Amino acid sequence: MSKRTYNFSPGPAALPVEILEQIRDELLDWKDCGYSVMESSHRDSKFIETAEEAEQNLRDIMSIPSNYKVLFCAGGASFQFAAIPLNFSGKNKNADYFCTGIWSEKAAKEAQRYCNVNIVAKTDSAQFMGIARKEQWQLSKEAAYVFYTPNETVSGIRFPTVPETHGVPLVADMTSCILQEDFDVNQFGLIFAGVQKNIAPAGMTIVIVRDDFMDQAMSFCPSLLNYKIIDEYKSMPNTPPTFSWYVANLTFQWVKKHGGVKAMEALSYKKSAKLYEVIDSTDFYSNKIHFKYRSVINVPFHLHDSTLDPLFIQEAEKNGIRQIKGHKSEGGMRASLYNGVNEEAVNALAEFMKAFEKRHG
Amino acid sequence: MSKRTYNFSPGPAALPVEILEQIRDELLDWKDCGYSVMESSHRDSKFIETAEEAEQNLRDIMSIPSNYKVLFCAGGASFQFAAIPLNFSGKNKNADYFCTGIWSEKAAKEAQRYCNVNIVAKTDSAQFMGIARKEQWQLSKEAAYVFYTPNETVSGIRFPTVPETHGVPLVADMTSCILQEDFDVNQFGLIFAGVQKNIAPAGMTIVIVRDDFMDQAMSFCPSLLNYKIIDEYKSMPNTPPTFSWYVANLTFQWVKKHGGVKAMEALSYKKSAKLYEVIDSTDFYSNKIHFKYRSVINVPFHLHDSTLDPLFIQEAEKNGIRQIKGHKSEGGMRASLYNGVNEEAVNALAEFMKAFEKRHG
Repeated sequence: MSKRTYNFSPGPAALPVEILEQIRDELLDWKDCGYSVMESSHRDSKFIETAEEAEQNLRDIMSIPSNYKVLFCAGGASFQFAAIPLNFSGKNKNADYFCTGIWSEKAAKEAQRYCNVNIVAKTDSAQFMGIARKEQWQLSKEAAYVFYTPNETVSGIRFPTVPETHGVPLVADMTSCILQEDFDVNQFGLIFAGVQKNIAPAGMTIVIVRDDFMDQAMSFCPSLLNYKIIDEYKSMPNTPPTFSWYVANLTFQWVKKHGGVKAMEALSYKKSAKLYEVIDSTDFYSNKIHFKYRSVINVPFHLHDSTLDPLFIQEAEKNGIRQIKGHKSEGGMRASLYNGVNEEAVNALAEFMKAFEKRHG
Repeated sequence: MSKRTYNFSPGPAALPVEILEQIRDELLDWKDCGYSVMESSHRDSKFIETAEEAEQNLRDIMSIPSNYKVLFCAGGASFQFAAIPLNFSGKNKNADYFCTGIWSEKAAKEAQRYCNVNIVAKTDSAQFMGIARKEQWQLSKEAAYVFYTPNETVSGIRFPTVPETHGVPLVADMTSCILQEDFDVNQFGLIFAGVQKNIAPAGMTIVIVRDDFMDQAMSFCPSLLNYKIIDEYKSMPNTPPTFSWYVANLTFQWVKKHGGVKAMEALSYKKSAKLYEVIDSTDFYSNKIHFKYRSVINVPFHLHDSTLDPLFIQEAEKNGIRQIKGHKSEGGMRASLYNGVNEEAVNALAEFMKAFEKRHG
């Protein structure tokens, strides 16, 4: 019997144990084929069935309207940082970007290769005021799209509401919040999400794009980043990452079974609140993000005395708490609370934090 | 106890059962972490260790000289069809392509977006003469590189030798023959291979590129297709397909343990010879490729009476023989004999073919 630990990895992130058990149990013999899903041709009817089921399950749990395409693309979400301007900025060559953290900044930087990037709002030292000062947002008059990142994983910042774009298609990088925060797909021109946080093993990105937003890609757009081509081949212009696709389907079923995205969202508030409560109740720990803009998924925090960091990590390890170290740009700690992280794990961390403070505070 | 069948999938292809068993056994608890490798951050020291081990093991089994970089890239090999001209055809904008089958033709078509493509030789109706007629090859005087596909999976054609390019860097798509045919890496400017045939689950591509061939990518090359950037970040400019990388390491260890690439090559000749022998000994089956250019990996064949095809597949299934149907462009049957397909499986297929002929010939 294998011993599981409490895993707060920022990604690739924890998966629900029931899903891992199913993967393990059918690893040598999937659907009575006598081989693994990893060993199946993507053209085989049994795999096609799984692929189509995955799309339908995702449509169900996210209530994706029929005028949106769902694409399963190879590679991580950073490929989309190029694909989006390559597909959509052809006509007027202007795009608006909210830069509220590391990920949206990277996206804006990559887009600058292909179009004029207008920064609508930028993170400043208070780390959230860019989102807060709506009256200072500088939306272009003729942007092809507006890009934003609802949840920034490194600094733990979220947009509390979907930004108003006055009819310009909104593009959202939901890598870290898909299936964990509840969005109305109708508000977006395009949603994309790398699968490695809340869905499946790293190496695939889901793209949900509105029919009428599908535009002509630039002439030098690689075929595998061209949404029209990917759609034409039903996400199989070449061999897709079949194993990730298969696990995605298991995850979609799991979300459905456990109350859907609304239940996941409610649980995310509850889990993160528990940690923020511990952090806010003392000067021993701190998180400087204003409560309105705090992520309900990634909870970064600092110990008041950073020389205690190594000891904190070491003692956490002894208590079965893993992958808690903060991003190198922020230092300190970070607990990522993706859907695969259950309440038991969060309770264990909260208790450990209190006990650590008692010993070393 | 799960029952394994004889799996001749064209890809994603069969993996050695020992590897699958190890994946299964550590699926919930990898390296005593208390979580799966799928749930590990790629920045974690335990994963970095695996990633570096994989590179070293590949260097060992392919004898990769130190003046070559080894990159683990996200996505399938078709991404490289764009990446190669985007990285290397910047200066003179000319590239030479051998078009000897579906895959090299796709590569040439994608390259035409970025440079002038000169077709050195083309497959004709005899399906191999393009390779055979060396005196008719039309190599450019100033090509940035020469591209070829040593093994074409659909029609089952191979280059019996590495083509002479008179100093122009040679680029090879080894997706279907890496670790199965023995090449001297020094003969190439760049080798690339999607992992889904002989290495790991689909969704990653290995690129082996000579230092001095590394050139300045075109300005509109997406960052994740830019070899200099990928190399700078040690193949982690973003979250890489960690699970495929982990399995790749297991495969490299397995190849090492089983005699290395030379042993795999010898076995490939033996396995394919067994099937060609059955095919050539009768008019009931046929394969029209000249013996000099026959693939030792993918063995396509036709039944003389194609109305028997569905029955052949049905009876094969009953005998535990799976994924034997030919590519839609060729019809008939195809047995793909990747390293994960052992001699027992090939013997079972050969015996079945003889018995089927006896019943229905």
